[in-house]
Amino acid sequence: MSSTFGSVFKISTWGESHGVGVGVVIDGCPARVPLCVEDIQHELNRRRPGQSAIVTPRSEEDRVEILSGVQDGLTLGTPIALLVRNKDHRSSAYDEMQHTYRPSHADYCYDAKYGIRAWAGGGRASARETIARVAAGAVAQAVVKTLSPGTDVLAWVQQVYTCVCPTAPADVQRAVVEGNIVRTANETAAKEMTQSILDARGRGDSLGGVVACTVRNCPVGLGDPVFDKLEATLAHAMMSIPACKGFEVGSGFAAAQCSGSEHNDTFYMEGARVRTRTNRSGGIQGGISNGEDINMRMAFKPTATLMIEQDTVNDEHQEVKLRGKGRHDPCVLPRAVPVVESMAWIVLCDHLLRQQAVSCIS
Amino acid sequence: MSSTFGSVFKISTWGESHGVGVGVVIDGCPARVPLCVEDIQHELNRRRPGQSAIVTPRSEEDRVEILSGVQDGLTLGTPIALLVRNKDHRSSAYDEMQHTYRPSHADYCYDAKYGIRAWAGGGRASARETIARVAAGAVAQAVVKTLSPGTDVLAWVQQVYTCVCPTAPADVQRAVVEGNIVRTANETAAKEMTQSILDARGRGDSLGGVVACTVRNCPVGLGDPVFDKLEATLAHAMMSIPACKGFEVGSGFAAAQCSGSEHNDTFYMEGARVRTRTNRSGGIQGGISNGEDINMRMAFKPTATLMIEQDTVNDEHQEVKLRGKGRHDPCVLPRAVPVVESMAWIVLCDHLLRQQAVSCIS
Amino acid sequence: MSSTFGSVFKISTWGESHGVGVGVVIDGCPARVPLCVEDIQHELNRRRPGQSAIVTPRSEEDRVEILSGVQDGLTLGTPIALLVRNKDHRSSAYDEMQHTYRPSHADYCYDAKYGIRAWAGGGRASARETIARVAAGAVAQAVVKTLSPGTDVLAWVQQVYTCVCPTAPADVQRAVVEGNIVRTANETAAKEMTQSILDARGRGDSLGGVVACTVRNCPVGLGDPVFDKLEATLAHAMMSIPACKGFEVGSGFAAAQCSGSEHNDTFYMEGARVRTRTNRSGGIQGGISNGEDINMRMAFKPTATLMIEQDTVNDEHQEVKLRGKGRHDPCVLPRAVPVVESMAWIVLCDHLLRQQAVSCIS
Amino acid sequence: MSSTFGSVFKISTWGESHGVGVGVVIDGCPARVPLCVEDIQHELNRRRPGQSAIVTPRSEEDRVEILSGVQDGLTLGTPIALLVRNKDHRSSAYDEMQHTYRPSHADYCYDAKYGIRAWAGGGRASARETIARVAAGAVAQAVVKTLSPGTDVLAWVQQVYTCVCPTAPADVQRAVVEGNIVRTANETAAKEMTQSILDARGRGDSLGGVVACTVRNCPVGLGDPVFDKLEATLAHAMMSIPACKGFEVGSGFAAAQCSGSEHNDTFYMEGARVRTRTNRSGGIQGGISNGEDINMRMAFKPTATLMIEQDTVNDEHQEVKLRGKGRHDPCVLPRAVPVVESMAWIVLCDHLLRQQAVSCIS
Repeated sequence: MSSTFGSVFKISTWGESHGVGVGVVIDGCPARVPLCVEDIQHELNRRRPGQSAIVTPRSEEDRVEILSGVQDGLTLGTPIALLVRNKDHRSSAYDEMQHTYRPSHADYCYDAKYGIRAWAGGGRASARETIARVAAGAVAQAVVKTLSPGTDVLAWVQQVYTCVCPTAPADVQRAVVEGNIVRTANETAAKEMTQSILDARGRGDSLGGVVACTVRNCPVGLGDPVFDKLEATLAHAMMSIPACKGFEVGSGFAAAQCSGSEHNDTFYMEGARVRTRTNRSGGIQGGISNGEDINMRMAFKPTATLMIEQDTVNDEHQEVKLRGKGRHDPCVLPRAVPVVESMAWIVLCDHLLRQQAVSCIS
Repeated sequence: MSSTFGSVFKISTWGESHGVGVGVVIDGCPARVPLCVEDIQHELNRRRPGQSAIVTPRSEEDRVEILSGVQDGLTLGTPIALLVRNKDHRSSAYDEMQHTYRPSHADYCYDAKYGIRAWAGGGRASARETIARVAAGAVAQAVVKTLSPGTDVLAWVQQVYTCVCPTAPADVQRAVVEGNIVRTANETAAKEMTQSILDARGRGDSLGGVVACTVRNCPVGLGDPVFDKLEATLAHAMMSIPACKGFEVGSGFAAAQCSGSEHNDTFYMEGARVRTRTNRSGGIQGGISNGEDINMRMAFKPTATLMIEQDTVNDEHQEVKLRGKGRHDPCVLPRAVPVVESMAWIVLCDHLLRQQAVSCIS
Repeated sequence: MSSTFGSVFKISTWGESHGVGVGVVIDGCPARVPLCVEDIQHELNRRRPGQSAIVTPRSEEDRVEILSGVQDGLTLGTPIALLVRNKDHRSSAYDEMQHTYRPSHADYCYDAKYGIRAWAGGGRASARETIARVAAGAVAQAVVKTLSPGTDVLAWVQQVYTCVCPTAPADVQRAVVEGNIVRTANETAAKEMTQSILDARGRGDSLGGVVACTVRNCPVGLGDPVFDKLEATLAHAMMSIPACKGFEVGSGFAAAQCSGSEHNDTFYMEGARVRTRTNRSGGIQGGISNGEDINMRMAFKPTATLMIEQDTVNDEHQEVKLRGKGRHDPCVLPRAVPVVESMAWIVLCDHLLRQQAVSCIS
Repeated sequence: MSSTFGSVFKISTWGESHGVGVGVVIDGCPARVPLCVEDIQHELNRRRPGQSAIVTPRSEEDRVEILSGVQDGLTLGTPIALLVRNKDHRSSAYDEMQHTYRPSHADYCYDAKYGIRAWAGGGRASARETIARVAAGAVAQAVVKTLSPGTDVLAWVQQVYTCVCPTAPADVQRAVVEGNIVRTANETAAKEMTQSILDARGRGDSLGGVVACTVRNCPVGLGDPVFDKLEATLAHAMMSIPACKGFEVGSGFAAAQCSGSEHNDTFYMEGARVRTRTNRSGGIQGGISNGEDINMRMAFKPTATLMIEQDTVNDEHQEVKLRGKGRHDPCVLPRAVPVVESMAWIVLCDHLLRQQAVSCIS
């Protein structure tokens, strides 16, 4: 009831951080979509630990294996199963966590809900779970790009702690984002953010931030009012990413202090195309894409595992002290970028297929 | 694919603003829950137009009829169908909208998606659609209060335009909120917000704002990782409410500029109960309720219909001018409060039943 | 969790036999499908009680009201809500059933499952529930005929008690079926079946039988292996009809005593079209329609309510005697014909839309 | 949209016969259910090819690997991923099938639906797909037996071609069934069936038959009217098994030639328990289990692959001849027995959890 997502393009993910591996089954993928293992591996490499100086030094290779649903570089229309085996286990680093609840982690809640917990490395509540999202996202991306070649999704780190990247969404370039280890959209911001992450790590501390994401050339007409409005399913998708605390689309919380005359996006014609002069709607009106860029922002809290001693309780309900061990990201933002993009691709793909299901009467 | 919501407690809403009526079918409601028509009508009256000087003067009575699923004040376990007939039609006020797209409304997108549009009053994209949410929410509330008597949901207007209500979530009292027409948590703020709404209406303008919502005494263990985390389904529910542009839980966007040492909620014991000293997690950790108050904030944009002339285009793709007619809310926030509470009850009810489904091994 | 059916074309039915009414909400219907109230009423009239000498004499008019989703004779793409109010209540006929379990009825099981029961007239377990199926089926039919104009569904009574109608599925004509009150495909059989039904009624008894159904000109490619094979979803749909005890497709149970060389359908070319020389597959291979007629047979048990005294128990678990009262069909078959057709249309419509969702890569 | 099944206990299967492997992800399994790899392997061994003289001699070991969701012999409440790698590939046996459609196989329909086909060994349409059903069924069985220890599911071959096993469902013993290679309930029938299967193989032919299944000590109250009646979901499950052509419950097609007075199951009290004197209802009334044995029968067609030359067409739409190669079951029935049981366990498990979700009001 919990690890499946999507309505037509349906993903079902599985895997504990220190189990055999993690993976996903994708049911509802159209046939004859070009797809190869490299497409998926490319995205996984962007999410991989150990890729830079500011992320966790764990060295998982995260090699993906396509188990079904693809033949000679084309999807078969049957379920696509993807598997990434776990490699670099260091469970001993987690021994203390077996009975002690890490503050602001899922440990206590998993015990309370399930009465059992895969304590090593966070189990299902580990960020390792997002591998399956990224793998599924790569498949979704292949589908969307086949059906709507111009559509693109681009995410970047817009804020780390107090440092805000000033680049406007429309000006963000993928080459710049991928050209710095923070994955922000501006070189100066990248340097400042990198330094503050390194400083935080030095203190055994961690930092929060904001990932922004823009969808360019989204087909008009995606989204299913009233409950599966495009922004509602995007919010669902993004808020399900570990550590995400907030979501906004278009004007977002800034809309609260606007009047209607300040906020409305007036329409005009650009050739044969209906456009809006401003885009406070964030590319979505009435829950349906209007063809303008879809702009979202997601707030991420700082990593909960700290190398600093904290008060907590254990599973015998005694108050104890805990200091984090293991190798953790002092800031999840750089690695969250491909995860955010993946969830956006998955939502777009599902809505695109849903729209095809009913947009049949000529 | 779009007007159903929920996994076990499943609602299916319907209705255009100027059609015969609006309603909902609830499938999956447990049997023998005490429920009477007054329970539902009470909540609908809070949402009703014409209830105060600062909302639309339309005078819909919004009387609900229980068509099935209830007998002698108890639910039967069979689908509950609820119907509210539409009464106060003034379609002529909408004649101009038949062919002209109102800026920042759903008109253009509905035409683009469906190739047809119930233009009178916004059709399915009208705020009238939220009647069905409130009716279903009243049923959900009855279920939750039967299963978990202490649980309560309380929403209030926390911001209108630039005026922010300073009351902390834990201090908000229902009597105060229901005691002023803005439904804010502080009398001074209520006066200021009322005045700014009246001023905006005087100018033919409208105002945005923020609704906050707190869930008190939520059972521990609700939420289904990884995709149906409690905050993810709450975000889905809230972002599907018309005009909602942003959602945050706990620290929300403020988490972005926190370090882990500033942000973590340390655990302690309060008698036999595991508590956190702070609540930046917002009552949810790892996607599962931890028993602390669940605090959310939702940003709402200002009403798009203005009594001010705006540039726009029509369905023949000509650029035209439009000035709103009809009777609209200059600020949706006061009437959004019961809608927000209803969506929270629906999400809680669904998660409570889902949890019962699997929490069976003793 | 129980009164919804369908994946893309999703129906949600509701209503107790002696409540306010019965109805259905259809979510996922494409926009711009021609649909008027008469299309639906026509099918409901075929299901209506009181239509002939061999069915129940209850005189429900069963007038349908379209509450939403249709404008000027076209669907809007939004949920379609349909309502049929109950009229002819005679609850007193059911007073005795309030505490006594009718043999082979749902009474005992509803009490055991829900702990409460809408005892009057069977409540949700009444055949009156099938009104919503027929109403939804009429909408599904409109969609399928718009998308695939040649497709047709034809059901008929193939057996009543020991009398079997000999007409082969391919030879059955709608005019003949609708031309006799039993709805069988042969006039001689009609007379014999009518007489045996009248005889049974005279004895206070009831009769079982078989409804056959053929789908002609079904598009090739419908059905979603592996679990939603076309025959599997048809079986689900048909076996959910009250009193249905068996389902078979193509050769059905006769396949059990065939060898492969007797059973296989060899392929040949008819012009550009791949055909099979025989049709023991029943128009479905590997769970997917192959373009041949889809032939199904459904067994129906005799009506459980008898005007004969029977042994039973009451809700205080005492052994008692019961003689049926009220006005019941001595044979449900004639009125089951439109119900069977409706469920077939609903399944076809859903699979057609599902196929459109994924058959997008050219 | 097709390879997922279940509502709360949700399975998602994947895998082509000649791909890397086959498997299943189970989402919605309760936590703390005792489960070990041997429980699953035991059932897979019953389904395994090469286990006796009358099934295919292919020697797949079908070793299952638990990839997630289980720790120290207990389920975690998180998704359970199971993998069985494919071993014994002999694709060359299928070379001819790459372009030629085997009569009464899925080949043509897959090509027509998907425009592509995993031709080797039938791909997704291979009986190898049922491995995932059996693996998931073993998990479902573990859940049901934990929640309702007395419940048991027993299937057997009741008919092969013209030979019918006379043992009444209530008299069937597991030891007898597992004691003969046909898996029928009577030793004499076993000998006759074995001989007729060997004879058919000798002719290059195949045989159909019937699998019967009984559920003993099913809890009262399972099944969700109106669409997810217990018999409807069982029918869905069974009719999705490859080669299944018919389903009946209780009296089944025999009900057609009964009168009500012949068919009704009268109630009586057996101590505190409500019982029926006969069981033509097959343990289900109104779609809900009544505590009597649930008796089902499923018709299976003869294996389509024959070692006899047949007429057919190829994917260039030319009429050609085809003689089967490879190693196939001359009769699928013996190996269908564990598949039928598995689907029954899966349906029961899902309904048991669904019932727990809503049976909460005391």
